[in-house]
Amino acid sequence: MARRARSRRTTETEAFVAPASPHVQRRLPFYDILDEEAVVKLETQVDWIMQEIGIAFRDDPEALRIWKEAGAQIEGDIVKAPADWIRSLCAKAPREFTQVARNPARNVTIGGTNQVFAPIYGAPFVRDVGCGRRYGDMESFEKLVKLAYMHPNLHHTGLVICEPCDVPVSHRHLDMVYTHMTRSDKPHLGAITEMSRAQDSVDMAEILHGKDVMDEHCVIMGNVNTNSPLLVDRVVTEAIRVYCGRGQGIVVVPFILSGAMGPVSTAASVTQAMAEAMMCCAFAQVVRPGAPFILGNFLSSMSLKSGAPTFGMPEPVISNYAIGQMARRAGLPLRCGGSLTASKIEDAQAAYESADSMHSTMLAGANFVLHSAGWMEGGLCTGFEKLIMDADRLGSYQKVLGEGLDISDEAFARDAYEEVDPGGHFLGSAHTMRNYTTAFYEPALSDSENVESWEEGGSKDMRQRAYEKWNAMLNQYEAPKLDEAKDEELRDYVARRKSEIPEAWY
Amino acid sequence: MARRARSRRTTETEAFVAPASPHVQRRLPFYDILDEEAVVKLETQVDWIMQEIGIAFRDDPEALRIWKEAGAQIEGDIVKAPADWIRSLCAKAPREFTQVARNPARNVTIGGTNQVFAPIYGAPFVRDVGCGRRYGDMESFEKLVKLAYMHPNLHHTGLVICEPCDVPVSHRHLDMVYTHMTRSDKPHLGAITEMSRAQDSVDMAEILHGKDVMDEHCVIMGNVNTNSPLLVDRVVTEAIRVYCGRGQGIVVVPFILSGAMGPVSTAASVTQAMAEAMMCCAFAQVVRPGAPFILGNFLSSMSLKSGAPTFGMPEPVISNYAIGQMARRAGLPLRCGGSLTASKIEDAQAAYESADSMHSTMLAGANFVLHSAGWMEGGLCTGFEKLIMDADRLGSYQKVLGEGLDISDEAFARDAYEEVDPGGHFLGSAHTMRNYTTAFYEPALSDSENVESWEEGGSKDMRQRAYEKWNAMLNQYEAPKLDEAKDEELRDYVARRKSEIPEAWY
Repeated sequence: MARRARSRRTTETEAFVAPASPHVQRRLPFYDILDEEAVVKLETQVDWIMQEIGIAFRDDPEALRIWKEAGAQIEGDIVKAPADWIRSLCAKAPREFTQVARNPARNVTIGGTNQVFAPIYGAPFVRDVGCGRRYGDMESFEKLVKLAYMHPNLHHTGLVICEPCDVPVSHRHLDMVYTHMTRSDKPHLGAITEMSRAQDSVDMAEILHGKDVMDEHCVIMGNVNTNSPLLVDRVVTEAIRVYCGRGQGIVVVPFILSGAMGPVSTAASVTQAMAEAMMCCAFAQVVRPGAPFILGNFLSSMSLKSGAPTFGMPEPVISNYAIGQMARRAGLPLRCGGSLTASKIEDAQAAYESADSMHSTMLAGANFVLHSAGWMEGGLCTGFEKLIMDADRLGSYQKVLGEGLDISDEAFARDAYEEVDPGGHFLGSAHTMRNYTTAFYEPALSDSENVESWEEGGSKDMRQRAYEKWNAMLNQYEAPKLDEAKDEELRDYVARRKSEIPEAWY
Repeated sequence: MARRARSRRTTETEAFVAPASPHVQRRLPFYDILDEEAVVKLETQVDWIMQEIGIAFRDDPEALRIWKEAGAQIEGDIVKAPADWIRSLCAKAPREFTQVARNPARNVTIGGTNQVFAPIYGAPFVRDVGCGRRYGDMESFEKLVKLAYMHPNLHHTGLVICEPCDVPVSHRHLDMVYTHMTRSDKPHLGAITEMSRAQDSVDMAEILHGKDVMDEHCVIMGNVNTNSPLLVDRVVTEAIRVYCGRGQGIVVVPFILSGAMGPVSTAASVTQAMAEAMMCCAFAQVVRPGAPFILGNFLSSMSLKSGAPTFGMPEPVISNYAIGQMARRAGLPLRCGGSLTASKIEDAQAAYESADSMHSTMLAGANFVLHSAGWMEGGLCTGFEKLIMDADRLGSYQKVLGEGLDISDEAFARDAYEEVDPGGHFLGSAHTMRNYTTAFYEPALSDSENVESWEEGGSKDMRQRAYEKWNAMLNQYEAPKLDEAKDEELRDYVARRKSEIPEAWY
């Protein structure tokens, strides 16, 4: 891990060819904030929700048919199921799995002690220092995908890094998936908004990776929200049927604003999220035993003044720690957290909230972190500078997670103490000479100069430095090589589907 | 704890009379990142440094005499001592103790599961949005003390919240101590820079608290740095002799920039810090068995480009977690971390670095956190806005620590699930009505409005809001009542000592 971190840094400064940065392999122990009594209480409530309250599976008769055939009790559209049975189905999902990228050096392993960072997903707006706030468009989308590809601390490019609002809604998924496939060679997600769009994503993945690879490996995943509370609509079940049906992965995420889509308490919201996601996991395992499944959690607090969602606050910090422990107990890979904030700009509020959110996400052991960079304005806006600033901080988290405390003999530096006198200094000691180039994380965007040097450099704040950084990165962008025949096949697929699907803007 | 947090918030919005906010009583479990093998390796190295390398006690013959009389082996000025003996001396220090404030509602308990937040210490410069960066002066000093007194999330006012550079160095400690004693009724520190200044601080504390109280309780503490590596000069030993000699507390802090004042590795720097501080603790216990002692740690990384110290980086994050565990093993109260940054302004860099630094400080279990608010520019500058911004975030940490995850029956909200249908919402549920006013931390400085409201409000960033906030606070400041006779006695003491001590500017 230490060697990988170093080579990433070096490569980044030499040229903007995206270095291999598959994911973080965690050496730091997990942080369990719940004692056995608390865990049992939470699990008891999860079981109670699944058994006594039930989850509605709505607007997808095929989903109810699948549940019924598997033996579930259904009342109307509400599925209630014995917790033991749901847990035994969940146990069929892999504790960890690999999502294969078209560049094998970028394969990511998700689950266990592995942690994968992906950028923001789903913002309709974008913002940068040069052009201000505006609707997302294909030009911004492509730039952001390139940046996510190039940045060494992002392992996965997600999908809707911003909404390309200048492309018809009915065609948008084709352009988005094509852009991820060609402007990057990192793993990414597919569309979920309609069953046919999920299918297009899976079909394009089969073109890119080939049928044989896809038969054996997870090469694409969907990420979909339940309609909390306790409602799973057909967007979810269809996405599960398409992705898991083809042996691919799915991330199912209860999005719970405590007090609105869940009770106004963290313990209840966490158990509700567990129950909703575990029922979806069980459904996925009925569809295809062994299908890769990521248990999601997106819990937020709100402002008492306005009811607006708040981020980076103590309640979601605690929620991250608690859900991490619950997911490990359930043996399921976890998605939670991110670099979240309600701030409209890249100011101190944005950074405080993002850091507290992400520090807890990191320690919680989140295996797949969507929104780990670029999130602003409660998710409504992707920030170009924010993306680069957050990603710079991800390098610090990678080192914390991947190295922990080195307790090798070299780290104890006994020879240095034989060499240096009391009150002396270690700058020239042999131990320092041997180790200084790899001792410290070197952030690209933190300025540690004295005030005079900083003023001579133009008194730039981090936002301005980030603006210059991402523009410089884009100037050095080179597309990763792609077999021309495959590219043509993908382009043909997109063109054909666009001709088949009427343009629609809703 | 929940009730206390609520009453603080309410009081803050009603009037700027500082509410009672003694300290955080932690319910969240500690985060132990080291396994037994690692702990033993670290402790073995601590013992090796104390026994084989030794620590120099320099320029204070009385300190060497005290060591000698206690039975230590001394070679030149280097004290080497059997680790068992040092550990048995350290065991005489209280695991937790109370620093009594002149307002008993503000007494703080330090050690164990208690966490106390104090502002920045020692910056020669100040900065605010209105006046920019400038040398600290008495006017700024007094304003900052008032703000620290008024803020509900600061439990202790420290001492050198900025250097009042317009007061002669030889008189400065008198004005600083007098200001803390009269403009605030929270606990604070005394001076350490010279033995006579330490003595003045202790003598003024005796006037304020009375001899009887001082005989029985810790009412003032000194905070002093060793001259790392492995050197304890007379500033340290004299401060220990004065403060501990009078039964008062002392914080001894090895300040180690890894690679300069310690080896360029975290494990070695942590063990060196432990060895230096434990030797000082043992010395304090020889001076007065049972004297309150706080084991300090200030470890920082550096920039490879310039050698400048860096903050909020992965190495000090790991160091915070490791030293927390080591201090608990040693049974000593801990000071570490803070809201640290190298940034020159209150930008995203300042906040990212401060939050990662402080999140780890919080989880590490630091019992006394100096620099928890206001620190900028690697400690050279106190920011008025930064003080208020950091302190706002401390409220979030207080809730994380003080509440953890509530697992009461009420928190599981079963009645709400009986009431709300799938896809419905909990906003009007009885459970939400019962709990919403206390469910979430309500930060004063985070804006969670939508972008339109935020723009209508003037598009203010957090720094601007903080500027308005602290000015509004100062407008509502009222000095806590102090017995007029005591105030006069303190003023007489200061006047007499100023007449006795020649003005000196160095």
